[in-house]
Amino acid sequence: MINGHGDDVYRYNEVKINFSSNVYGHFSHIDLFSYLSSQLYKVSHYPEAAPITLEKEIALHLGLESYEVMATNGATEAIYLLAQTFAEAHSVVFTPTFSEYADACRMHRHRITMITELDQMPSDADILWLCNPNNPTGQVIPKSILLDFIYKHQQQTIIIDASYAFFTRQPLLTVQEASLFPHVIMLHSMTKEYAVPGLRIGYITAEESLLNKVKAYRIPWSVNQLAQDAGRYLLHHAQEYQINISTYMDEAQRVYRLLSTIDGLQVYPTDTHIILCKLTRGNAADLKQFLMTHYGILIRDASNFAALSEAHFRIAIQLPEENNLLIQALIQYINRTCF
Amino acid sequence: MINGHGDDVYRYNEVKINFSSNVYGHFSHIDLFSYLSSQLYKVSHYPEAAPITLEKEIALHLGLESYEVMATNGATEAIYLLAQTFAEAHSVVFTPTFSEYADACRMHRHRITMITELDQMPSDADILWLCNPNNPTGQVIPKSILLDFIYKHQQQTIIIDASYAFFTRQPLLTVQEASLFPHVIMLHSMTKEYAVPGLRIGYITAEESLLNKVKAYRIPWSVNQLAQDAGRYLLHHAQEYQINISTYMDEAQRVYRLLSTIDGLQVYPTDTHIILCKLTRGNAADLKQFLMTHYGILIRDASNFAALSEAHFRIAIQLPEENNLLIQALIQYINRTCF
Repeated sequence: MINGHGDDVYRYNEVKINFSSNVYGHFSHIDLFSYLSSQLYKVSHYPEAAPITLEKEIALHLGLESYEVMATNGATEAIYLLAQTFAEAHSVVFTPTFSEYADACRMHRHRITMITELDQMPSDADILWLCNPNNPTGQVIPKSILLDFIYKHQQQTIIIDASYAFFTRQPLLTVQEASLFPHVIMLHSMTKEYAVPGLRIGYITAEESLLNKVKAYRIPWSVNQLAQDAGRYLLHHAQEYQINISTYMDEAQRVYRLLSTIDGLQVYPTDTHIILCKLTRGNAADLKQFLMTHYGILIRDASNFAALSEAHFRIAIQLPEENNLLIQALIQYINRTCF
Repeated sequence: MINGHGDDVYRYNEVKINFSSNVYGHFSHIDLFSYLSSQLYKVSHYPEAAPITLEKEIALHLGLESYEVMATNGATEAIYLLAQTFAEAHSVVFTPTFSEYADACRMHRHRITMITELDQMPSDADILWLCNPNNPTGQVIPKSILLDFIYKHQQQTIIIDASYAFFTRQPLLTVQEASLFPHVIMLHSMTKEYAVPGLRIGYITAEESLLNKVKAYRIPWSVNQLAQDAGRYLLHHAQEYQINISTYMDEAQRVYRLLSTIDGLQVYPTDTHIILCKLTRGNAADLKQFLMTHYGILIRDASNFAALSEAHFRIAIQLPEENNLLIQALIQYINRTCF
């Protein structure tokens, strides 16, 4: 899908608070920008055709071997490469979730089945696509249940998009643990972890022979020079990109509880910093327009997620006073539409 | 092909003169870098999923409609998208040329025929891939011959990679002329035109309905934020990126004539700034190593172009004194290998 994603902040001139993106917006990038400024001269040359230096450093960072890592032009390129690698497979998508898995599968002629519970997995499926923690619900599959599923489905390929792994207190399958399974592939988003979506840096981790199948489909120079440089810089400065997860999740739960008290709003429980909501009256497009016009607040209209409706929207937790303003604005909108 | 391209300058610490890249290395990028530094803050947000603002500005620059332009992550993404759009076609590649056309066609299950003359075009072909001016030969197909071919092959799709259009005095089919033919697609490289290969900015021009077929295969966010910004900046400052083509081509012809006098070297006529050569003794890998070790000179080992041999290498014309040094070094190598 090329239209209808979140963080369409570039469409608006007057966004004061951006709740629409899943990226954590409160890191200071001053040192990164200073570094990148000093590296701009490199754009006069070709980058590495395959970004192997970055891959080596990611592997070192994770405690993996470099042949277990493939860097990509954002996690999105990784999704499309996986769909291409397994073209025409029977893919199962754990729903509701990020639309790109199904879109990529459609492009590469997969048969697609949507499931909402793991025990609905068809026996003739080739692949399960799973976002964990999940977007747009913010929910985490308990680690014991996921591990049990992985053990029981060794003939199927399980793709776990771990882009939101840094936004939860729930225990997750680690990349090192996943690397022990030859049928598990993980997707990662440096975009999300380090809040640099403009640069496009993602990567895949998987067992060597499985990953080599994917690498056969990569095109030269897909990760540009500045993304490669930024990726390496960010790995070396990872300690400066740590969220106080306890505070952040406490705030998410505070907002969740406050939202839950609003009549006219159905709020889904979350394990992360994002909250899925459903208006019981009105629709998300109208709410989005209202919030933008009156408050400069941008939310994510979630109506184009498969299995969701035009009443669904999603927010990512911001600073407490910003969250409070959103809650007030939501109440104002709902009261207005009740008349 | 992910290995074996030119401009592998990142592999070496001590490149003094880089003859290996087809990019013109003598523009000053100071103002571009200053501009990009001021735009770095944007990497905190997602870029446009499809880079439509950049596409509009490219169209304006060219005198086309914006629906006739598709911006890509370098011309390489364009090549792979075209091969994907026409998956399983019978593709004909005008050879010897850039390896990516055949590589992309192989990835997408094309039947591939190589031809070395236009009149060898098979009647059952679906697509002709043509680089004009051509890499690695530097030769231009006369415009009248190309136009005649286009008129005669209206049932076939003709893909013209115009990445080197700015490096010749020969008349070429313009993008505006090509837009009159619904079966002609052109590829363009801002990388090459503005000498920013590290950023990855290319684009496709074609008739609307044909281009819409290609756009159906594009993935979101493939062109990162800084590439989009740089692309727009460069279009606005195009007049600062003009080569003195008369001087540059005169120098290319001077170097061609000097190279032609060297015993032990076969030199191919060129219409551009690149010259293909063949050693009659020794091989290009050995020569490349020699030039790097003794002179810090990097050349392009051209042995991995289809239809070329391990004795082929390619150079791009640099400044006169640099070209003179290359010629001296070549003579020294050839005299050495004669003993």
